[in-house]
Amino acid sequence: MLSEFDLIARYFTRPPRAGGPVRLGVGDDCALLAPPPGESLAISTDMLVEGRHFFAGADPFSLGHKALAVNLSDLAAMGARPLGFTLAFSLPSADAGWLAPFSDGLLALADAHGIELIGGDTTRGPLNLCITVFGSVPDGQALRRDGAAAGDEVWVSGTLGDARLALEALQGRLELQPAQLAAAQVRLDRPEPRVALGHALRGVATAAIDVSDGLLGDLGHILTRSGVGAVINADALPYGAALAHEAPDRRREFALNGGDDYELCFAAPAARRQTVLDAARHAGVPVTRVGCLTREAGLRVTDGAGIALAVHSRSFDHFANP
Amino acid sequence: MLSEFDLIARYFTRPPRAGGPVRLGVGDDCALLAPPPGESLAISTDMLVEGRHFFAGADPFSLGHKALAVNLSDLAAMGARPLGFTLAFSLPSADAGWLAPFSDGLLALADAHGIELIGGDTTRGPLNLCITVFGSVPDGQALRRDGAAAGDEVWVSGTLGDARLALEALQGRLELQPAQLAAAQVRLDRPEPRVALGHALRGVATAAIDVSDGLLGDLGHILTRSGVGAVINADALPYGAALAHEAPDRRREFALNGGDDYELCFAAPAARRQTVLDAARHAGVPVTRVGCLTREAGLRVTDGAGIALAVHSRSFDHFANP
Repeated sequence: MLSEFDLIARYFTRPPRAGGPVRLGVGDDCALLAPPPGESLAISTDMLVEGRHFFAGADPFSLGHKALAVNLSDLAAMGARPLGFTLAFSLPSADAGWLAPFSDGLLALADAHGIELIGGDTTRGPLNLCITVFGSVPDGQALRRDGAAAGDEVWVSGTLGDARLALEALQGRLELQPAQLAAAQVRLDRPEPRVALGHALRGVATAAIDVSDGLLGDLGHILTRSGVGAVINADALPYGAALAHEAPDRRREFALNGGDDYELCFAAPAARRQTVLDAARHAGVPVTRVGCLTREAGLRVTDGAGIALAVHSRSFDHFANP
Repeated sequence: MLSEFDLIARYFTRPPRAGGPVRLGVGDDCALLAPPPGESLAISTDMLVEGRHFFAGADPFSLGHKALAVNLSDLAAMGARPLGFTLAFSLPSADAGWLAPFSDGLLALADAHGIELIGGDTTRGPLNLCITVFGSVPDGQALRRDGAAAGDEVWVSGTLGDARLALEALQGRLELQPAQLAAAQVRLDRPEPRVALGHALRGVATAAIDVSDGLLGDLGHILTRSGVGAVINADALPYGAALAHEAPDRRREFALNGGDDYELCFAAPAARRQTVLDAARHAGVPVTRVGCLTREAGLRVTDGAGIALAVHSRSFDHFANP
């Protein structure tokens, strides 16, 4: 049985990168991190619980990837550049067959974004992963939720709904062909945080959020904080490749209220449409215009002809869904 | 049943303090925190699991206090000034009878240290509390573990062993008088992080750590990182008030290997003895000289006459003690 200290040393400790923002990494009472002069630190924390956010027995490599990805997605939504992260986790036993692929998945994504694990805590208990991620953003340039204005257009990155499609199939509520399930499941298990896009949208987007609980629910947070309403064109939604095979009602529902998409939803002035497209091309992520913001409060969904659709917003709430 | 958003709003959201380091608090994708110019951010994260770090049914006010206290203790051991913290937690249900006293205990300690809750995550699951705390320290002034030298003296703040005494009593392994248990239990349930002392020891102590797993084990980390050994005089140890009534063997064992003390153990040059005492008086925390560092590796414990004692170091390991 590995000790706690061996476990950290073997799976989670690497030599620090010289010259970076990390002044002191794993192994002391605290890590020391210095954001560049004139920049603030952007901080987000997410907790993933077995049986709630992922299935018992989930593939550990994917889990390592996803635990960090959902946090990086919050940095992306802020326009922040990732600097580092801490990992606190409880697990039932120090099982090398689980720890090795988990740390591989986690650190592969960290490497892809050039960031380091700077500290953490390990303990025994029901499987629970808590990552806190740190980025930097020049003062005044963060993409907040409260900066959108009536008349701004609403955009979404990538595609929506495939993660929800996979989840429903894995929970036995619908059936998919194996190839279709595989295509959907990669979106559920290996979300790609839109860090480069968030960075490129600094100074362009007036507000942004990442789509973790469903487009309508998450857009609702921008509306509330910015004091505006919105009209969304359901026929303009970018459906996931797997979801595109499904019936229209399901497509619409999963794209609007799916959850686990980890795309960015953002607002930008209509006059900056080309700048948005240029930023997206620069970041290598497609973006789609899906609606606009209104002075009138509330969130309305229409079809492509402007006819109002009756849809509900099902923003995920961990305590409303026992 | 409270929703996740109501829960955060009702129990954990307060108006941000103007002019502080927190540029953006709870309610966006990330919090924004700006350390003062020329200072690094000190970061620590700890996870507390029900049944492992605290008893099922533990008093929620004390739990709120302790969850933050153990993190502030890490900042203290670094000499950092606390700025803010995030809280991610899973709990079985959104029970107001638990949440209200928990947040009271948490925020009372936050207020005592002038810091804000800047973000977090709440989800349903087995009770698990993960706090990440942020402080600032001028570049180059952090109290690290690797700066101690042979000849430095070893100091401990406050008293040791009462928390372990309470734990053993509560687990039925020994019996205490009610008044003695009460005195010991306050040390277990309501540790006071030595933030002012850590701050005062900047530029005085050559290395520091907080005593969470037992004095010998934690001092061992300083020895390893600094490349030195130590001799500790067991008869000089500052015993807790409740522990002082116990037999000598138990006193010694709990003071040396107790755990959950959340005192500071630090090293300082012998020539700075008076400066250490002045810093401690300034911080309002007693300190005791308990030994010295040696060129020869290893950790030896003697009595007051210098006779070697046979003691083991029982540094707590979450995976070695099933």
